[in-house]
Amino acid sequence: MKNIFFTPGPSGLYFTVEQHLKEAFRSDIPSISHRSKAYVKIHQQTTEALQKLLQLPDNYTIGFTSSATEIWDRMSENLIAKHSLHFVNGDFSKKFHSAVASHGKNAEARIAIAGTNHDLSKVEIDEKVELIGLAQNETSTGAAMPVEDINFLRSKYPDPILAVDAVSSLPIPAFDFNQMDSLYFSVQKSFGLPAGLGVWTFNDRCIEKAEKLQSAGNYHDSYNSILKIAKMAQKHQTTCTPNVLNIYLLGKVVQDMLAKGIGQIRQEAKYKSALLYNLFESHTKLKSFVSEKKFRSETVGVAEVEGGSEKLIKALANKGLHIGSGYGEFKNQHIRIASFPTHSKEQIEMLVDEINQLDF
Amino acid sequence: MKNIFFTPGPSGLYFTVEQHLKEAFRSDIPSISHRSKAYVKIHQQTTEALQKLLQLPDNYTIGFTSSATEIWDRMSENLIAKHSLHFVNGDFSKKFHSAVASHGKNAEARIAIAGTNHDLSKVEIDEKVELIGLAQNETSTGAAMPVEDINFLRSKYPDPILAVDAVSSLPIPAFDFNQMDSLYFSVQKSFGLPAGLGVWTFNDRCIEKAEKLQSAGNYHDSYNSILKIAKMAQKHQTTCTPNVLNIYLLGKVVQDMLAKGIGQIRQEAKYKSALLYNLFESHTKLKSFVSEKKFRSETVGVAEVEGGSEKLIKALANKGLHIGSGYGEFKNQHIRIASFPTHSKEQIEMLVDEINQLDF
Repeated sequence: MKNIFFTPGPSGLYFTVEQHLKEAFRSDIPSISHRSKAYVKIHQQTTEALQKLLQLPDNYTIGFTSSATEIWDRMSENLIAKHSLHFVNGDFSKKFHSAVASHGKNAEARIAIAGTNHDLSKVEIDEKVELIGLAQNETSTGAAMPVEDINFLRSKYPDPILAVDAVSSLPIPAFDFNQMDSLYFSVQKSFGLPAGLGVWTFNDRCIEKAEKLQSAGNYHDSYNSILKIAKMAQKHQTTCTPNVLNIYLLGKVVQDMLAKGIGQIRQEAKYKSALLYNLFESHTKLKSFVSEKKFRSETVGVAEVEGGSEKLIKALANKGLHIGSGYGEFKNQHIRIASFPTHSKEQIEMLVDEINQLDF
Repeated sequence: MKNIFFTPGPSGLYFTVEQHLKEAFRSDIPSISHRSKAYVKIHQQTTEALQKLLQLPDNYTIGFTSSATEIWDRMSENLIAKHSLHFVNGDFSKKFHSAVASHGKNAEARIAIAGTNHDLSKVEIDEKVELIGLAQNETSTGAAMPVEDINFLRSKYPDPILAVDAVSSLPIPAFDFNQMDSLYFSVQKSFGLPAGLGVWTFNDRCIEKAEKLQSAGNYHDSYNSILKIAKMAQKHQTTCTPNVLNIYLLGKVVQDMLAKGIGQIRQEAKYKSALLYNLFESHTKLKSFVSEKKFRSETVGVAEVEGGSEKLIKALANKGLHIGSGYGEFKNQHIRIASFPTHSKEQIEMLVDEINQLDF
């Protein structure tokens, strides 16, 4: 039985990954030095492809870390002297807040009930806030923030560093990177790669802030501090031996996405998520956890399951269809279904059909 | 042309890696959650195999990081309040010293000339020193420290945390882990895996020290701090989404090594390094960079090349045989040749023959 993973990450591999992996082995990618010209070329190809796919402005740097979790530390250590503000609406936005607080900073959390999101048109932000943390796609609940709301927040409060968690949504939202400063994601979600690589894009405002903190002695230096990452990125290199294979594979997958066209990928994402939310609305035992339509994620659909989610998850797994359980406190009440770029319309249609036919 | 990589890491893949990778994809390893039972089983299998291969005592924990470079930070942040002492004899032992110093600690460096090593029988260590850093195998120069010298140092100074860099030598040296506290390596060296995973083994003395520093407010917490790693390791998990594929592959390679027998692997290492040093001694244009025999690494052989190393390296590369250049300031004067467990006796013999036949 061929398994299909609709889990919200790690998830199904992008459908071209195995082929690229074979080519990587044929080309000895796992054996090349990360200080060689061959590596520099790979690094550059990957970051240039990403820059093109995401339409990153020129003042952005792309850095590689071990994970998105590491990036929370780096922002805590390198971009905040004292005050940060976090729009929390689930476990991942909360984890960023906790990371900053554990670094001894004054991290304020504004909390929206799980399954909902903040009304950014109404927020008031104190001028002492240096960094705003925001999960554009809260993987634990399936609540997303529309890009226009983020842009509105920025227009009202242009000064603080705006850090956007797009771990499980990129490349679907059409961000305006001029309206934010720091954005990060993990490759094992929408990019369909094996886990073990975080990608951090940040602009020159972040670098300036870090330099200011460093001068003031308020900067925790580490092997992967933002200024070291930025310095090595100029040479198309990393601060230490990276996950070369994943950096290579990411470049190949992004090139495949460019060849398909980001417009096409985004259109399919709309169709696939419409199928999922239609299922949640039409099925008597399912209910979208995010009730307000504008806050529904296009990549991670979360539903409450009447009587608990375990039976449905197991029945689907027996058919080789793997979906996610709820996150944290919702483990046994929710299902979470990823519709990432690797998931074809036909696969989502089949999953919906199977769920409709199952007795759970 | 089939390339063979004798570079000192990244190097040739262990000869079973491709087969294990195919099995990993067949078993959907890249798509499983790092919080699933399936992952916990993989993690446990890998750490148990490593514990067996290295004969780690029960009071040791095995943790995973992004790289050995990250481990220098973690030791700086979690195991040293004020004073560390570093036996520096090349660029990697120096980098550990620099990392500790950059964290604002009082890091003393004792420096041996590159290509030599410290006489540990004669050193005097102040009682304020909390951690001793030592590169058992200095990858930049090919100078190694005999295990009995490390054991002697420990018998004389049992109190400081003894941290051993075995990045490019494990599993060849037969360490007595009761004579040290912290040991770390990278998988892309002797274990023949793709880069992107550091392995950190540490004992309960390290945990106690970290707890003491934490109580005293002298502990930098991070996503991958030693106490978080230790806590998650008890559950056979990691602090964040790790390089699952590499953790799986490491377990498989270690199991292969166990099946072959560590005695056999170590015997072959002796033979292969004897071939290399014999070449360095017999060839008119080559000279072992490490003159004192007891300090010669069994896994990374380094030689000075009369007239410079570039021509030889290129001529071998044209035949598909890839060896390393010198490190740092020795880039154009040295060659560095790895004889890791993946390198067969026949491959090293062939390499030696080719070098003997070449005009350079």
